Amino acid sequence: MSEHKLEQQWTPELLEFHEELQSKNMGPLWASVFSSSQPTPRAIPYLWKKQLILDMLEKAKNLLQVGTGSIDRRAVYLVNPGMKYLQPHGWGGATQTLYAAVQALNPGEIAPPHRHMTSALRFIMEGKGASGVVNGVKYNFEPGDYVITPEWCWHDHINEGDETVLWMDCLDIPFTSALTSSFFEMYPASQQPIDFPEDYGTKRYAGGMVRPISDRKPSPAPLGRYTWDLTKQAIDGQSQFEPDPYDGFAVEYINPSTGKDANGRIGARMQGLPVGFKGKAHRHTHSSVYVVHKGKGYTVINGERFDWEAGDFFVVPVWAVHEHVNTSETEEAFLFSTNDLPIMELFGFEREEAYSENEGYQVIEKVFEPEFAEGSVVIK
Amino acid sequence: MSEHKLEQQWTPELLEFHEELQSKNMGPLWASVFSSSQPTPRAIPYLWKKQLILDMLEKAKNLLQVGTGSIDRRAVYLVNPGMKYLQPHGWGGATQTLYAAVQALNPGEIAPPHRHMTSALRFIMEGKGASGVVNGVKYNFEPGDYVITPEWCWHDHINEGDETVLWMDCLDIPFTSALTSSFFEMYPASQQPIDFPEDYGTKRYAGGMVRPISDRKPSPAPLGRYTWDLTKQAIDGQSQFEPDPYDGFAVEYINPSTGKDANGRIGARMQGLPVGFKGKAHRHTHSSVYVVHKGKGYTVINGERFDWEAGDFFVVPVWAVHEHVNTSETEEAFLFSTNDLPIMELFGFEREEAYSENEGYQVIEKVFEPEFAEGSVVIK
Amino acid sequence: MSEHKLEQQWTPELLEFHEELQSKNMGPLWASVFSSSQPTPRAIPYLWKKQLILDMLEKAKNLLQVGTGSIDRRAVYLVNPGMKYLQPHGWGGATQTLYAAVQALNPGEIAPPHRHMTSALRFIMEGKGASGVVNGVKYNFEPGDYVITPEWCWHDHINEGDETVLWMDCLDIPFTSALTSSFFEMYPASQQPIDFPEDYGTKRYAGGMVRPISDRKPSPAPLGRYTWDLTKQAIDGQSQFEPDPYDGFAVEYINPSTGKDANGRIGARMQGLPVGFKGKAHRHTHSSVYVVHKGKGYTVINGERFDWEAGDFFVVPVWAVHEHVNTSETEEAFLFSTNDLPIMELFGFEREEAYSENEGYQVIEKVFEPEFAEGSVVIK
Amino acid sequence: MSEHKLEQQWTPELLEFHEELQSKNMGPLWASVFSSSQPTPRAIPYLWKKQLILDMLEKAKNLLQVGTGSIDRRAVYLVNPGMKYLQPHGWGGATQTLYAAVQALNPGEIAPPHRHMTSALRFIMEGKGASGVVNGVKYNFEPGDYVITPEWCWHDHINEGDETVLWMDCLDIPFTSALTSSFFEMYPASQQPIDFPEDYGTKRYAGGMVRPISDRKPSPAPLGRYTWDLTKQAIDGQSQFEPDPYDGFAVEYINPSTGKDANGRIGARMQGLPVGFKGKAHRHTHSSVYVVHKGKGYTVINGERFDWEAGDFFVVPVWAVHEHVNTSETEEAFLFSTNDLPIMELFGFEREEAYSENEGYQVIEKVFEPEFAEGSVVIK
Repeated sequence: MSEHKLEQQWTPELLEFHEELQSKNMGPLWASVFSSSQPTPRAIPYLWKKQLILDMLEKAKNLLQVGTGSIDRRAVYLVNPGMKYLQPHGWGGATQTLYAAVQALNPGEIAPPHRHMTSALRFIMEGKGASGVVNGVKYNFEPGDYVITPEWCWHDHINEGDETVLWMDCLDIPFTSALTSSFFEMYPASQQPIDFPEDYGTKRYAGGMVRPISDRKPSPAPLGRYTWDLTKQAIDGQSQFEPDPYDGFAVEYINPSTGKDANGRIGARMQGLPVGFKGKAHRHTHSSVYVVHKGKGYTVINGERFDWEAGDFFVVPVWAVHEHVNTSETEEAFLFSTNDLPIMELFGFEREEAYSENEGYQVIEKVFEPEFAEGSVVIK
Repeated sequence: MSEHKLEQQWTPELLEFHEELQSKNMGPLWASVFSSSQPTPRAIPYLWKKQLILDMLEKAKNLLQVGTGSIDRRAVYLVNPGMKYLQPHGWGGATQTLYAAVQALNPGEIAPPHRHMTSALRFIMEGKGASGVVNGVKYNFEPGDYVITPEWCWHDHINEGDETVLWMDCLDIPFTSALTSSFFEMYPASQQPIDFPEDYGTKRYAGGMVRPISDRKPSPAPLGRYTWDLTKQAIDGQSQFEPDPYDGFAVEYINPSTGKDANGRIGARMQGLPVGFKGKAHRHTHSSVYVVHKGKGYTVINGERFDWEAGDFFVVPVWAVHEHVNTSETEEAFLFSTNDLPIMELFGFEREEAYSENEGYQVIEKVFEPEFAEGSVVIK
Repeated sequence: MSEHKLEQQWTPELLEFHEELQSKNMGPLWASVFSSSQPTPRAIPYLWKKQLILDMLEKAKNLLQVGTGSIDRRAVYLVNPGMKYLQPHGWGGATQTLYAAVQALNPGEIAPPHRHMTSALRFIMEGKGASGVVNGVKYNFEPGDYVITPEWCWHDHINEGDETVLWMDCLDIPFTSALTSSFFEMYPASQQPIDFPEDYGTKRYAGGMVRPISDRKPSPAPLGRYTWDLTKQAIDGQSQFEPDPYDGFAVEYINPSTGKDANGRIGARMQGLPVGFKGKAHRHTHSSVYVVHKGKGYTVINGERFDWEAGDFFVVPVWAVHEHVNTSETEEAFLFSTNDLPIMELFGFEREEAYSENEGYQVIEKVFEPEFAEGSVVIK
Repeated sequence: MSEHKLEQQWTPELLEFHEELQSKNMGPLWASVFSSSQPTPRAIPYLWKKQLILDMLEKAKNLLQVGTGSIDRRAVYLVNPGMKYLQPHGWGGATQTLYAAVQALNPGEIAPPHRHMTSALRFIMEGKGASGVVNGVKYNFEPGDYVITPEWCWHDHINEGDETVLWMDCLDIPFTSALTSSFFEMYPASQQPIDFPEDYGTKRYAGGMVRPISDRKPSPAPLGRYTWDLTKQAIDGQSQFEPDPYDGFAVEYINPSTGKDANGRIGARMQGLPVGFKGKAHRHTHSSVYVVHKGKGYTVINGERFDWEAGDFFVVPVWAVHEHVNTSETEEAFLFSTNDLPIMELFGFEREEAYSENEGYQVIEKVFEPEFAEGSVVIK
């Protein structure tokens, strides 16, 4: 809707007038208004290979140390080529609302505590021995876990193991940056005190759609870590039925005290694509960032094929037609994704539309060629 | 608040005037108003022995058959002695809002489908082989399961096994009866068609605080049956921490699409009282009906001791001080209970107060003597 | 729904069993359940003449004085003949949820402050010089005004003029009495301190659908008194359009900080029936208590005609078919009414149905004969 | 929060690495993160003189005609100098969320109907004879009126009088543009059919905080036009009390069916500053666009003085300290303003803080020099 009409149609007199307006900090509505009837995202469909990200983090590991006096977080974030125009004044994210990054924490490192109005979440990709403290509860990180730090919760991370631990970070920085209304605070010590037993929330939600009676009142994070084994069990429970035509066997993480998305303004899902799954195409107004948890396949977005395997990231922008395919003949694929559906719903912006042409499957017009690091030995 | 002042204080002239008012379908506020500053329930603390209920159901089994042409449901319900004044015009329940009953379904019997604006729920006490259909989903009943039929959902039951199956029914009949605004409908066949795979909801919620993405929109019963094994697992998860001082390790069942009580207007809980548990006393404005799922112990209510064991029912009225004790030296006790907390909260009526005298424990002034059936051989 | 089946159908053996159950504080569901598919109110359509009420208040004025050491409120309340069964243990109101009364305050009298969880409202019928203090704001009473004292707000009344002032009181006592969860408190002085300018809320809401910015946060009574002149102006604004077929030109009073009913759990309306208005019939699950503010006419309820004029009260029970008629050839009629619609909506109980027979108008089968006081000279 | 750290602190090696990241569509979190603890708006305090805007519209009137085949709307909009970086890919508004413009409609012109997901509102500045149709209701425009067209409502304008009519338009284009999720639709005719009597909503809300009973269900625009006379009456009602220390006598327009802001995502206020009013300073996280309806004075924003008179526009960005002063000795000043408070509140972003230094008044460090059009004869 905010796309500007081409200037060509205007007379020289009008073009001069438009320039005068601009010089007076004004603009001509007639040359700007509403040229498109449908959402026109500036973010584009894109994919980042795990190997590229790892190569970058490797460099970062050699150049920078995490902890007091050094940097606070060692994370490289994904910049959607279509959102670069916002730099350096605004914030170019993976989509128009979502920041996504991969963070690496080396053995012995401590990422000191802070809190902010932006919501944050983590999806643990690789490595054991790290943990995070969220508002006084220490949560251990295992691959496949989903860990939340909703707005204004203190959080810090530590790696007490002996291997590098990698996770995806997702925040709504581009959104809060657009509103320019955020607050940020450093904790006055290098670590928070731990006020509760380890994995307190996770152990109290060990089974069933039931809630400890003390958690009846809405709170931001009664359950801070959603373990992979319980999520997997939930997906397996569904797998005796028909998969969703677009998303396979998909679940979303919920806050047990509200029934809404676990992380407030950012939705998160895990979806299992069974062997042979060939999803139908659809589009919706919310945008998503995917990280491949397990398996191999591709996603067709607006007619372009994005091949993926474990550890790769890709984005589906607003209103982009997309379909997922598992290409393995033996293994289920698992995609973890985050989205801005809670924001869209809050404003009544959410719409969804099935792709109706070609029996619901897009024609692949193009195959995406991913970037790799210079000098990286890529086995394609 | 609605207790009426004693008439003794009035002059003969006024007493005559009060009678005139009554004859004209009016009343004197000054003789009625607000004599008490605190809730004064008419329901009293009470306990029904399992054996009494079973004896009654045994008689009912011999006298009545369930199914088309016969009676619809074979259930005997609990009438609080303090609520009898409502009969026969209103409805005397177990508490001022809650109806509670035990239903027996014999092998081969079918309790035909109907629906109503009253909310209904079941807690399976004994027996296997029965099942219920709720809005087209068939749920199998196992002891310890919690099964819901929220308002206006079609429901019917069948016993396809070879033993009698017993369950607790709880509805908010006294509440909807007081509002006199309820609707009821018989299904035009002896059984509903089954539109979904068996135990559909239960299998789709097999683990984790996650929700199939198709259940994001609020609906009355995305999950219709909460199995005992998952509930037990949840309680076990808590049991490595400190129990709640009043209620031990207690969970409430939630509707995953809303985060509110599974059954809308009726809350339900399972609480585990560990060996040696001696709860502190408190009171609250909501009332509860308990059925003992496992174990042995007693509850002190307003200074009176109510001894209980598996299968017994007891009620804690509005604002009654109460504390629970597990008297077994070897076994955890489990109490299932229903309550009107959702109704109280909706109106802002809920208040809670710890008992502060005597270090938080009541002095037992009286021991309750339960009723038994005539001729029943009671081993005390 | 709670109507009990007739006992005649049962065998002597069963009847004996039912009695045994009763003696054991139990009941047979099969003899009680769900005999009616539609709401079956126990309250009946009824009308109280103004003259009867005035005669009763006259007696009360001679016998009782309001103020400290005497009675707190001089009010006679309306008891629906169908709700008498609740006395003396429960509370028989004008409908199943609503208490309605007429209160008389003589010159010089002070009705001392108290507060309660029941919601209260007043509609000023006659007389000037009285006022009420609600949470520190003094509101002057004029005929036609609607004045609220939502739950837990301190309120007291004083008559500083030289004539008796009459008003209708409406509270949800029967409802809160059925829940038995209410609290009540006397103020520790004979009058509240006045913390705000006179008629503070009313003056701050002098015009327009706008709100002082300080009232943005929901609060129980930002506006405590809705004056007749503004309400009249609102109804006049509508009167250039088509009236509602059932209710004429009708408005409901709203709390500007929430957009919901001014008094929380009790709805209130003023409706203008233009000259010649002959409303169509319908029914709904909420019940209403009407007081005629001005004019003359009748209402047909379930086929019975209830003639009314200014000062008369009548009730429309749950689900009763009703239609209003203005019989004056010169004057608009105004009906003030209160209802339990907020309660019904909160639980999803509200339904409405147009009367479809006889072109939407009931056949009058009966004319109601009202009661008068003994010795009262009635000019019919 | 999204401000980027200066690059100077990094080693050449790291700077090279940052460039590599950028070339791979990635970024270094450590060089970007969270440098500021408080909101750092990119929009700056700014003021546009009425005369400048009128001069621009005069040029536009000579160059462009409104209606089918020509341009749809003749409006010049305000571009905050701090938001220009968003052009041409995004949308630079008056603040980070709000678009503001002045629209001129000449006698005989018709601005054809369309609808969009962006919310729109109008404040009528000058001229009579114009009107707008919103979802089938025609509303006449008078100076001082507030007229709404919430999201997805059809709206068109016509000038049937003989003078140019000017109004302020405000939409949340920058916000919806940042989300890139908006839809837009042209109406398939040059005017909508008119389905209701003229000024239907306005006449039905002629007085009192009451609502026609048919408007009980939430809807986007039961009242489409808030007339100046009723708004003035509301402000006058407050003026016998103490003004708000920051905002004088201020009201916000509400939707009677919800109690929330009349226009959903955009708040709107009218505030009266009495003679001699010297407001205290404060700041809040929502941003505002002001248009001076009547009177003369100045506003100090972050230490800079902005002098204003009727017809001038100015903006108060997020978290900017500001205070208003009426400098007239005889006339009350009236400021109309729009804000993004509804958006901030929806996300829990709203905070407010009183300015505590210097007894609550800022020291004026600078006086703003406004822009004028070339060749414009400015009488200062």
